[in-house]
Amino acid sequence: MNEALQYQLIKKCSTTKARLGKISTPHGEIETPIFMPVGTQATVKTMTSEELKEVGAQIILSNTYHLYLRPGHDLVEEAGGLHKFMNWDGPILTDSGGFQVFSLGDLRQISEEGVEFRSHLDGSKHFLSPERAIEIENALGADIIMAFDECPPYPCSHEYAKASLERTIRWAKRCQDAHHRSNQALFGIVQGGIYQDLREQSAREITALDFPGYAIGGLSVGEPKEIMHEVLDYTVPLLPENKPRYLMGVGAPQDLVEGVARGIDMFDCVLPSRVARNGTLFTSHGRVVIKNAQYARDFTPLDPECGCYTCRNYTKAYLRHLFKAEEILGLRLATIHNLHFLLDLMKKIRQAIQEDRFSQFSEEFLGKYGSR
Amino acid sequence: MNEALQYQLIKKCSTTKARLGKISTPHGEIETPIFMPVGTQATVKTMTSEELKEVGAQIILSNTYHLYLRPGHDLVEEAGGLHKFMNWDGPILTDSGGFQVFSLGDLRQISEEGVEFRSHLDGSKHFLSPERAIEIENALGADIIMAFDECPPYPCSHEYAKASLERTIRWAKRCQDAHHRSNQALFGIVQGGIYQDLREQSAREITALDFPGYAIGGLSVGEPKEIMHEVLDYTVPLLPENKPRYLMGVGAPQDLVEGVARGIDMFDCVLPSRVARNGTLFTSHGRVVIKNAQYARDFTPLDPECGCYTCRNYTKAYLRHLFKAEEILGLRLATIHNLHFLLDLMKKIRQAIQEDRFSQFSEEFLGKYGSR
Repeated sequence: MNEALQYQLIKKCSTTKARLGKISTPHGEIETPIFMPVGTQATVKTMTSEELKEVGAQIILSNTYHLYLRPGHDLVEEAGGLHKFMNWDGPILTDSGGFQVFSLGDLRQISEEGVEFRSHLDGSKHFLSPERAIEIENALGADIIMAFDECPPYPCSHEYAKASLERTIRWAKRCQDAHHRSNQALFGIVQGGIYQDLREQSAREITALDFPGYAIGGLSVGEPKEIMHEVLDYTVPLLPENKPRYLMGVGAPQDLVEGVARGIDMFDCVLPSRVARNGTLFTSHGRVVIKNAQYARDFTPLDPECGCYTCRNYTKAYLRHLFKAEEILGLRLATIHNLHFLLDLMKKIRQAIQEDRFSQFSEEFLGKYGSR
Repeated sequence: MNEALQYQLIKKCSTTKARLGKISTPHGEIETPIFMPVGTQATVKTMTSEELKEVGAQIILSNTYHLYLRPGHDLVEEAGGLHKFMNWDGPILTDSGGFQVFSLGDLRQISEEGVEFRSHLDGSKHFLSPERAIEIENALGADIIMAFDECPPYPCSHEYAKASLERTIRWAKRCQDAHHRSNQALFGIVQGGIYQDLREQSAREITALDFPGYAIGGLSVGEPKEIMHEVLDYTVPLLPENKPRYLMGVGAPQDLVEGVARGIDMFDCVLPSRVARNGTLFTSHGRVVIKNAQYARDFTPLDPECGCYTCRNYTKAYLRHLFKAEEILGLRLATIHNLHFLLDLMKKIRQAIQEDRFSQFSEEFLGKYGSR
């Protein structure tokens, strides 16, 4: 049993792989399946901690790469850790910075030792290795921290995907050795691209290292949805039942439903808050682009079925005005709505699993919202 | 007695012209002296209505020029008026649009009939007259509406200032004739630049029209502080004691204290929220520029004497990080702080007048904060 994290499997769906569970962390419990809002720079964009709680956030994610560069993990540690620095007393998960540095393209160079890269802020040179990533994550002090992995692009050859996953396994071992805080749970990551044999190899080797939780990485990077579903179909069953499973970087409403059906417990993505700031809003009948002229004199709430602060107090006409006038309140109200929508969706999913009607719920939701 | 507004003089300071009062409007009471946060485009930038109440806002101001152009006063009227449109159930004051169109410079042309101008948004041609301004303000539905006046620039010749104030008086009469809503109080505006004889003429002629309240316009437009104080010194005594007095466009902390001492009841200005968004913060010991390097590892609150949400929950180091990282939460926390600071200052001023120690309070405040 891990000191920093316990997973309790509460109930399994009788017709799908969906499961209800509970994760205990040093900063509180998380009901799963759950969506984690992303606070890249130690703030979930536009939101206060109180608002995050009001929309139903139980755990948030923050990015090691960004915090390392600014304000610096040493500063955050000096502030008393990330929870205290950003005034969020619930659970936090930090990624390892791997995904961000690999996304830098020409600005980074990979070796067995780690990755040399240039800052997107000022071009300064830096080096991230498994040991360095863990050192930074230890300093930030999140409840759940991720191993330093390589997330290969899509498409990617079998040869590259194999070499990459094997390095990721060696790096996972080095992360484990470097990790020294007993109040932080280190998760391993399954890679292997879209190749079944590689996903099998990766899952076998990573689970042999006995992490307290596992993520599935390298999906939602441009591949068709059918392929993502297929990879989940054969990968999730390779993970131990008594540990949480986290699908990284996935956050569209329909993808959450599809992921839960395949046995995923945790999700994160910037999508809901990013599209909110562009004026694209999730509703029970699909997406609404609030700047459209049809909403100019629409004095009804965005989603009459929604109980969020935005839908309780404002009309589509006012939201549209705020977006047309480029007012910050528009970004706030849209973010509140989209995060509430997703977190409420997860709550409904948990209730449906509890009452063993998840298949029916899933069908109804995808029918109304759309499956793409 | 005016149907839409009553002013009650509660107490006069024994050593200055400061006075404590209460204004009753269709949307509630306002304790004076008061500062009015500005919600230019039907939103006080970054703030929700609940946050405005939490920082102590009793009345807010919105701009006729901006709302007329976008989303349009007819749309706001169709929404049920400005209060309902923006979800603010307290008192609102709208200006007449005069100040904004005169600020357009080459984009506008003045005649006895009114002002032709081009929109700053799309260059389209528009015409504002006293009748049109009142028609728009009637549609917006604020509790207090302002007459359409000309605010001459500084410096300005005696000849121009005289011609302008005389037109403003004629326009005030036309506004009065055009105004037809009994639940909105129309205020007259004293102009006359920095010339004592013209301020006297303007005050005499505008008060003869018997408005339920009077504003002093044309100050804080570039003239030295001493001149502003001098104009207030001889203008305020010309206004009737039984009606509220509003100093337009003034909002620096020291100016509020100086204005109250000269008998002003109401103030408005974008300054506190605008400088907040630039990272300049009012504190009991003067201004703080939060981006300065000295705050990078300052883990204390912005102002230990302040009880606002920002100071209760966040450190200078975190605020600085948010501003360096250009995060919206930084703009929010800064706006909350500055508005709370000003509204709390007004509360302290009211308490000081109530306890007849305003002179002492004023001296102490200006000593700590600085008088410039």
